[in-house]
Amino acid sequence: MAKKVKIGLIGAGRIGRLHGDNIANAVPGAVVEAVADPFLNDATIAWANEMGCTKCYKDAEAIFADPEIDAVFICSSTDTHADYMIAAAKAGKHVFCEKPIDLNLDKIRLAMKACEDAKVKLQVGFVRRFDKNHKAVRDAVASDMMGRPHIVKVTSRDPEEPPMEYVKVSGGMFTDMLVHDFDMARYLSGSEITEVSAYGTVCINEGFKEYDDVDTAIVMLKFESGAIGVIDGSRAARYGYDQRVEVHCAKGCVQDDNVLNSSIKISTVDGVQVEKPNWFFLQRYNDAFIAEVIEFVDCIQNDKEPSVSGIDGLMSVAIAMAAKKSLKEGRAVQISEVL
Amino acid sequence: MAKKVKIGLIGAGRIGRLHGDNIANAVPGAVVEAVADPFLNDATIAWANEMGCTKCYKDAEAIFADPEIDAVFICSSTDTHADYMIAAAKAGKHVFCEKPIDLNLDKIRLAMKACEDAKVKLQVGFVRRFDKNHKAVRDAVASDMMGRPHIVKVTSRDPEEPPMEYVKVSGGMFTDMLVHDFDMARYLSGSEITEVSAYGTVCINEGFKEYDDVDTAIVMLKFESGAIGVIDGSRAARYGYDQRVEVHCAKGCVQDDNVLNSSIKISTVDGVQVEKPNWFFLQRYNDAFIAEVIEFVDCIQNDKEPSVSGIDGLMSVAIAMAAKKSLKEGRAVQISEVL
Amino acid sequence: MAKKVKIGLIGAGRIGRLHGDNIANAVPGAVVEAVADPFLNDATIAWANEMGCTKCYKDAEAIFADPEIDAVFICSSTDTHADYMIAAAKAGKHVFCEKPIDLNLDKIRLAMKACEDAKVKLQVGFVRRFDKNHKAVRDAVASDMMGRPHIVKVTSRDPEEPPMEYVKVSGGMFTDMLVHDFDMARYLSGSEITEVSAYGTVCINEGFKEYDDVDTAIVMLKFESGAIGVIDGSRAARYGYDQRVEVHCAKGCVQDDNVLNSSIKISTVDGVQVEKPNWFFLQRYNDAFIAEVIEFVDCIQNDKEPSVSGIDGLMSVAIAMAAKKSLKEGRAVQISEVL
Amino acid sequence: MAKKVKIGLIGAGRIGRLHGDNIANAVPGAVVEAVADPFLNDATIAWANEMGCTKCYKDAEAIFADPEIDAVFICSSTDTHADYMIAAAKAGKHVFCEKPIDLNLDKIRLAMKACEDAKVKLQVGFVRRFDKNHKAVRDAVASDMMGRPHIVKVTSRDPEEPPMEYVKVSGGMFTDMLVHDFDMARYLSGSEITEVSAYGTVCINEGFKEYDDVDTAIVMLKFESGAIGVIDGSRAARYGYDQRVEVHCAKGCVQDDNVLNSSIKISTVDGVQVEKPNWFFLQRYNDAFIAEVIEFVDCIQNDKEPSVSGIDGLMSVAIAMAAKKSLKEGRAVQISEVL
Repeated sequence: MAKKVKIGLIGAGRIGRLHGDNIANAVPGAVVEAVADPFLNDATIAWANEMGCTKCYKDAEAIFADPEIDAVFICSSTDTHADYMIAAAKAGKHVFCEKPIDLNLDKIRLAMKACEDAKVKLQVGFVRRFDKNHKAVRDAVASDMMGRPHIVKVTSRDPEEPPMEYVKVSGGMFTDMLVHDFDMARYLSGSEITEVSAYGTVCINEGFKEYDDVDTAIVMLKFESGAIGVIDGSRAARYGYDQRVEVHCAKGCVQDDNVLNSSIKISTVDGVQVEKPNWFFLQRYNDAFIAEVIEFVDCIQNDKEPSVSGIDGLMSVAIAMAAKKSLKEGRAVQISEVL
Repeated sequence: MAKKVKIGLIGAGRIGRLHGDNIANAVPGAVVEAVADPFLNDATIAWANEMGCTKCYKDAEAIFADPEIDAVFICSSTDTHADYMIAAAKAGKHVFCEKPIDLNLDKIRLAMKACEDAKVKLQVGFVRRFDKNHKAVRDAVASDMMGRPHIVKVTSRDPEEPPMEYVKVSGGMFTDMLVHDFDMARYLSGSEITEVSAYGTVCINEGFKEYDDVDTAIVMLKFESGAIGVIDGSRAARYGYDQRVEVHCAKGCVQDDNVLNSSIKISTVDGVQVEKPNWFFLQRYNDAFIAEVIEFVDCIQNDKEPSVSGIDGLMSVAIAMAAKKSLKEGRAVQISEVL
Repeated sequence: MAKKVKIGLIGAGRIGRLHGDNIANAVPGAVVEAVADPFLNDATIAWANEMGCTKCYKDAEAIFADPEIDAVFICSSTDTHADYMIAAAKAGKHVFCEKPIDLNLDKIRLAMKACEDAKVKLQVGFVRRFDKNHKAVRDAVASDMMGRPHIVKVTSRDPEEPPMEYVKVSGGMFTDMLVHDFDMARYLSGSEITEVSAYGTVCINEGFKEYDDVDTAIVMLKFESGAIGVIDGSRAARYGYDQRVEVHCAKGCVQDDNVLNSSIKISTVDGVQVEKPNWFFLQRYNDAFIAEVIEFVDCIQNDKEPSVSGIDGLMSVAIAMAAKKSLKEGRAVQISEVL
Repeated sequence: MAKKVKIGLIGAGRIGRLHGDNIANAVPGAVVEAVADPFLNDATIAWANEMGCTKCYKDAEAIFADPEIDAVFICSSTDTHADYMIAAAKAGKHVFCEKPIDLNLDKIRLAMKACEDAKVKLQVGFVRRFDKNHKAVRDAVASDMMGRPHIVKVTSRDPEEPPMEYVKVSGGMFTDMLVHDFDMARYLSGSEITEVSAYGTVCINEGFKEYDDVDTAIVMLKFESGAIGVIDGSRAARYGYDQRVEVHCAKGCVQDDNVLNSSIKISTVDGVQVEKPNWFFLQRYNDAFIAEVIEFVDCIQNDKEPSVSGIDGLMSVAIAMAAKKSLKEGRAVQISEVL
């Protein structure tokens, strides 16, 4: 068996802990060797110890300096991602970075270049690509049986709007939420997006207006291949996490549906009830979070290229920026305008 | 029982015969009293006789002149609709007119005014409003349980592209095909469309380019109510007639699905097969074609207003024109620009 | 076009009127020429006139004596079926007889023989064979793709228990209700049933006990082919009419599902609701009632044998009697024991 | 946090390794402390070491003698279960025993008594009770919303028949395979089974006849509560593992459906394809295998009674024996006859 990959986890918030737990319990090829978090406290240390990890730091530098460590998981706040990527690359550590890499395209490019120069692996956390349902759609589209894509559709609705304190610093619906869906559209189509036209509106909570944000949006897409597409997004589905994709191709249509809490059906005089979709991403993408780490570890152990790379991180942010611009200026925007 | 409504059928092509057969066999309150068709031949006469109708003319004037006739069904070519409407109204006949009324908004307005002045009923053939599935969606949206609409989605795909001779004279995908979907979006939302942005592309048959047409399109919609929407359309689904609608509202989502040929499921080692959707509109909207005529007859017998009126005919054509303009000019177009 | 088949309708109760309306409105090849009902009243006469039928009698003899009449529909009470069949056959009329033909197997045989001797067509009203969903299952099973049947399953649940006055004279759950399902099992399997074992219980209404009847039953079946099967039946589904079939074969499984009132799905925080199945047989088998008459008329016009014949009527009653005996005696019963 | 439960694993075959891997990777409250297998070899030792377990024995006695060990998992061949249970109980170890405990009811009773006398926990491996879908059905049935059960239905089909060497020693379809379904029927209904009537046939492979076995079976059930039920089983579904349950109650029906490999749907001119069910129990009950161990560990740590106890192990074997007897003797068999 290959040598276990020793991982330094940077940022022990919700997503950092999720990755940590997965590495400890569900990824046989890796261990958490160290944890760094600026707000390190007893609870974090206890959690790390539970995983068998005793190196706990406030400063990520200790991780970069540790020759035992093979790779880092960057799960800190967005504004720190790029700098940590560069530091990690310089220290020769492989990098798994949560999305978005940064909201500034030049910083993303710099960080990507650092990884490239250092010849370390770079994987960006577009976890949805590892969902077995979306993957089955992509596999079918990429096979011979469907012909080329004509229309790509993504539905993306969170169960509930976030608190306004979150909205305030989120960067807006396109960069914070739909960035995943722009990546999904690129993934499903196998083609680059060249132009977007966005409609957005505030239907759920007037508070979004205060932060120049929207809570409901539709974005039309043009692809290099000649296909067109559309994403519809909402901050509040109410019935759970609505994550459906559909690709209409020359020979027919491939689509998936939400993952339900169970397959139960209850029929009474009052109606027929089936289960709601999984509540949110932690439920829906639970297995995908594990699968993406397993791929990352496999890429390190067997010197392969991660399927979700820096360019995916760059492009999805660029598309989100173009969509924002389109909404603001009321016109179609070329991705080349923001690149 | 109310007196039977005597109908004069103008145009005995595919849609005219469909209405004639339905009136004869499935609408107890009405009879086909006369048929007029410029290409009247023995087959048409035989068909009319079979229904118990012996008055067969080449010229529609004979219908307008017949005091026995209460109402006309205008099923002739689009360019004749408005003139027949005006003639019928002047003769005091109620009017059922197939869509679109005309491709010129002023002519539509004139024809509507004629009906209004003559105080005759006017119903336009937006048959999909009478589909029980779409109607169930509208009823749920209009009820208290869902809250106001946020996102309206319509999927509209014909099974196969029409022959190029048809495309040549069709007026283009927006006026010929998506006009139904613009009406559907207005119907589902209960709100007027104020702006559209269209993407269109030729994926299916290069021939569409010759006629300055597209075969694949997506149109974003803005509604007066603040909601937004999107229609995706294709001339060639291949697997049948794809007709799905979805309205995401403040309290959740209402959607319908295609009507399948049967409820059978076959599971073997090769996979699990379910039925395809109904092949095309004659299958899918068979019951709806009957229901719309029953409503029209009821409106005449009981002096009610048809639920699908001239304004619906006017608006859907205006939206189609705006969408065409949006595609051509590469920008969002206000409906007010074309009205 | 073939000469219209002139039909004499015997019995103008619920099922008689259903057939009459279908013949008048939906079966182009036939007309109702006469109606006979011992309780003939003004309402029945008005209904007949509405269909264009002016010959209304109390006594069915007038129908047998009318040389204009080609065929009879026997929709009277069960105890009169066999005698009417014999009289009709002697008069040279083709016979459509509602199920069950009789509860006495010898009387059924006599009536069948009369039809055979007179060389008139005989069709028994097992309407479910004409349901497009069940038919699709049978067609798949009969094709090469599935291999021979191993397990045949039929679920049969009425929406609500009938009134006790009905139960009293119904002949019991097996003969009155499951007789349809015994025929369905024979139809789906393409094989004769040789043995049954029945369990029955009273869960819904204690009143059934008074009439030595059950309201909930399961019957296991053995087929000549070596396959086995099971029917589960209930007098009260509550959520509508539950009519599902399933055939597990050498190469996999074929099944159908209930027909729902629409394809709508409503998702809210309270759950996901889909439509209930059609309420009862008038809704679910509406099209099948028309299809069976069209086949009967076609058999007369083109001298074909009806696909549902007297032997089907005989066997299903015999199986019902065997099931009743099995329940009473607590043992498996060979069909040969009752034949 | 509670002290980790130290487990001695007896039998390192397929099911033993499954439990071992789950304890090591997915059950935070337990560790594999020792492994015993009569065929212990290097591969088994390597596998154990991988889990962090270094105590590897040929003889289970070493496990019973180890004071460090809190509980045993008995995953050896069926004929050894009861003796190991007794030895474990005498040594004061809690017992998780794979099903069936034994094929002799008296031996089961002895083993149960040993656990009772020693006051150790006893859980039997009826893993399906921990499947979230079946559990959702049971929870709905047990709630107020459905009323009392009338009909309990279980469909149980393995994807492919086992090799004949397995069939030879399996004990037959009822004890080997349907024993799970008898437990499921008891679980779903919340009532004891009092009588069974079985039909069985050989449809898949003539080889079953050689071992006096069947490959296709239907068993009717009577419950103490007055409800009735039916299980249909096949050794070869071909399309995957078919595991569906349904409970029809006073107020309506609760059912679940198979778990599919993904939610993808592919529509082309050739038909509409959805995914097959999970292939077999390792896929379908993967999460349930983890859940049952978590419950067992929780019962030890917090002194609760396991929800699946010895009596469940006893009754399901008794019912299987009664079903076998019913098939052989061609009559209904009371469970009391075999107890």
